[in-house]
Order: sequence, then C-alpha cells, then structure tokens
Amino acid sequence: MTTTAPWHATILTLYPEMFPGPLGVSLSGDALCRGTWALDTRQIREHGIGRHRSVDDSPAGGGAGMVLRCDVLGPAIDAAAPAGDPRPRLLMSPRGKPLTQSKVRALSAGPGAVIVCGRFEGVDERVIAGRSLEEVSIGDYVLSGGEIAALVLIDACVRLLPGVMGKLASGDDESFEAGRLEYPHYTRPREWEGRAIPDVLNGGNHGAVAKWREAEALRITRERRPDLLANDE
Amino acid sequence: MTTTAPWHATILTLYPEMFPGPLGVSLSGDALCRGTWALDTRQIREHGIGRHRSVDDSPAGGGAGMVLRCDVLGPAIDAAAPAGDPRPRLLMSPRGKPLTQSKVRALSAGPGAVIVCGRFEGVDERVIAGRSLEEVSIGDYVLSGGEIAALVLIDACVRLLPGVMGKLASGDDESFEAGRLEYPHYTRPREWEGRAIPDVLNGGNHGAVAKWREAEALRITRERRPDLLANDE
Repeated sequence: MTTTAPWHATILTLYPEMFPGPLGVSLSGDALCRGTWALDTRQIREHGIGRHRSVDDSPAGGGAGMVLRCDVLGPAIDAAAPAGDPRPRLLMSPRGKPLTQSKVRALSAGPGAVIVCGRFEGVDERVIAGRSLEEVSIGDYVLSGGEIAALVLIDACVRLLPGVMGKLASGDDESFEAGRLEYPHYTRPREWEGRAIPDVLNGGNHGAVAKWREAEALRITRERRPDLLANDE
Repeated sequence: MTTTAPWHATILTLYPEMFPGPLGVSLSGDALCRGTWALDTRQIREHGIGRHRSVDDSPAGGGAGMVLRCDVLGPAIDAAAPAGDPRPRLLMSPRGKPLTQSKVRALSAGPGAVIVCGRFEGVDERVIAGRSLEEVSIGDYVLSGGEIAALVLIDACVRLLPGVMGKLASGDDESFEAGRLEYPHYTRPREWEGRAIPDVLNGGNHGAVAKWREAEALRITRERRPDLLANDE
C-alpha cells in the first residue's frame, strides 16, 4: 500500500474507446482496479473547429492524407495538462527517439505521462515545438495511429510499478536489463519429443546454473543482437 | 473487392478477450468487418494439463516466474496451425529479431500469420525449436506479455492491405519506406502562436516542395537516427 499519488497516464486521442483495452485485463488491469495506476482519456475532437468539430486539414504543399491541426491539438493539450503538470508530454511517432527499457524505467519512476496519439498523415510540426512534445517511437515500422503505441508504452511502464508483478518475476533478470537478451527457459517435462532439458539445469548446482545462464545470454545476444554488446566489448 | 482469401491472423493466447481490442476500431476495424482480413484467437489453456488445465511450471534450474510448458504450447500450435498451413509461425518475444517496416511489408503480402503470445517468465525453449517458431521483437523493452506486441504487428500489416488506407495515405512516403524518417507536416492556419508555415509550402511550386521535403527528411534522419543512413552513406 502506498500513500503517494498513483502513476497517471492521460491519453489524447480521437479513439478513446481503444482504452484501457488490453490494459484492463491481467496484471495491468488488476493494478488499475487497485489504484496502483490511473488512466484517463481526452477526446481531441472536443477541441475541434466549427460545427463539424473538424480536427484535421490537407497538408500545406500538397500530398496525400490529412494533418492534425495545431490550433486543435494545442488547446487539447493545454486542457489535459495545464502549466505545472509535472508529467512528460509524449507524442507517439515513428520519427521519435526509439523507446528503450531504460527509458521505460525512468518513465515508470516518475509521476506518469501525457501521451498524444497522432492519426492520419501526421501532426502539424508547430504544435510539437510549441508544446514541447517529446517524440517517442516504439520501433522502426508504421502503425495506423499512436494508440497501440501508447498501449505498449503504458504496459511496459505499469508492469514495473511496485506491486504489479508481485512474486511473478523480479524484472532484474530480463532482456535488456543488463544490455543483453535473456537466456533460454525450460520447465517440466524433462524430455519432450526427444528434446531434453540441459543437464546443468537439473543438477541443483546454483553456481553452475548462474554461470550457464550468463554464458547463454551472452551467446544469444552475440548471435542475434551484436548491436546491444557494441558498447560493452 | 477481391476473390482471394483474406489475410488471416490466428492468435494463441491466455487472454483471447484482448482481441480484436483496438483493432476492432477505425480503419482496421472497418477492414475486419468488410472481410479484408480475418482474426481468430485460440485459448492456450484448452490444451492445459490436468483438472486445473495447468499451462506453466517453475523454471528448470530455479529462479522467479513461471515458464509456459512445451507439452501445452506444442499441441496448441498443432491444433491452430496443422501441417500444410502456409502461414509463418511467430512468437512475440524481446529476444526476437527486431520488427522492421520491410518485414511488415513481407508479412502483409503473405497469407497472414500464426502468432504465439508468451506470458510469465517465458516459453520453454524446446517448443520454439520443435515448432519452428520465428521470434519477433517489436522493440528493446519488456512487456507483460506478447498480446500487445501482436496488436502492433497486426495493425502494421493490416494497414498495408489493399483498400485499407484508401485515399487517406499512399504509404509510400512514410517513415522507413526510403530508409529515412518522414519530413515535417503543416496545415492551416498559416500562422499559429507566431509560428508560420515554411514559405516554400505555400508557393505552389511542386518541384520546390518535393526538394524541400527530401532535404528535411534527410536532415531529421541525420539528427535523430543516423543509424538508418549508415547503409546509404
């Protein structure tokens, strides 16, 4: 039990019905019910222009798609996160800085996040500068909008909040925590379709197990993601 | 209208209620209703062991967390994707090969995907080998399970299916398509909070606009993601 304010995510979106979605289930859903974290959504369209609450317009200079207007998103951000709100303001965007586990750790140790979800072709560049939005990318691919990227970011943060994972896992031994991928896992049965659990894992020698796991983590990282080791070696 | 079979995703999960979730809304949801793509979920627990339909056990060699059993997941995969199913079998995992836009293009051009979502500490290594699962990572961070990663992968693929984006965007001009990030977007109003749309975009000179956009895309990529240009320059 904690007496501090819960970790608080505010989502600006044109599709509030996408939330909490999968975050309302399993560990993150239980933690949401317990008040370990809080979520609210703001409909960007409430700040839309004119009778039709228009939020977008065609790109200056021409081209396909529509661009979210700065004079809609700006006021929407101001309403959701007034001056003094200590939370970082993130814009989910493939042009952003790639999300890493250490960024996730930093965000989850903070008060929460205000997360802007783009749609259409993109967001007017001036609101990114004018509202100091930090562009965050979850990977080198393009999604139909920022909403599923926001789910990723929140899930990664929430599982690290105190009490969320409980005894299920410590979080210290995982992929990326030591700059490498995780070692392989095995469980019963001892043999399956002619494949056996490596002997060392059955022996009860904790030192030997730890040494094997460390070597396997290094081997797998070297094979699959030498880039993760580039800073170490 | 197409007469070929729709792109077909089959998800193996302990949380089928997470699907279609956000994929049931907006562009991907409309396309799901129209039959442009199909989704079905399989509850891994149906292949659980004993009266309690147990799916996991403690890790061989000790440690925190639980591991998904190979003698549960193996039969679950066999039931969901029998021999002859031409779809790739993916396991969402932070240990996998990082997802890229070109991988997304390749997957969306195929028949679909069978997607295994891990939970707990991980999946018994033997089922990854024994069922030729291709491990795919959506980024260098850890999630509470593979479900939200599966939503990311499917959203990225579905938006590229014929007819899904319609006239909203061509998809050719986006981040990663030419190995670089996208140029900045602007739309009305011409001035906002003292910030103006760059003159070149108001001039109607299409050649100049194209040149400016190309230069801006290159500048932003150089500043933010020089790694994307490393192969080019």
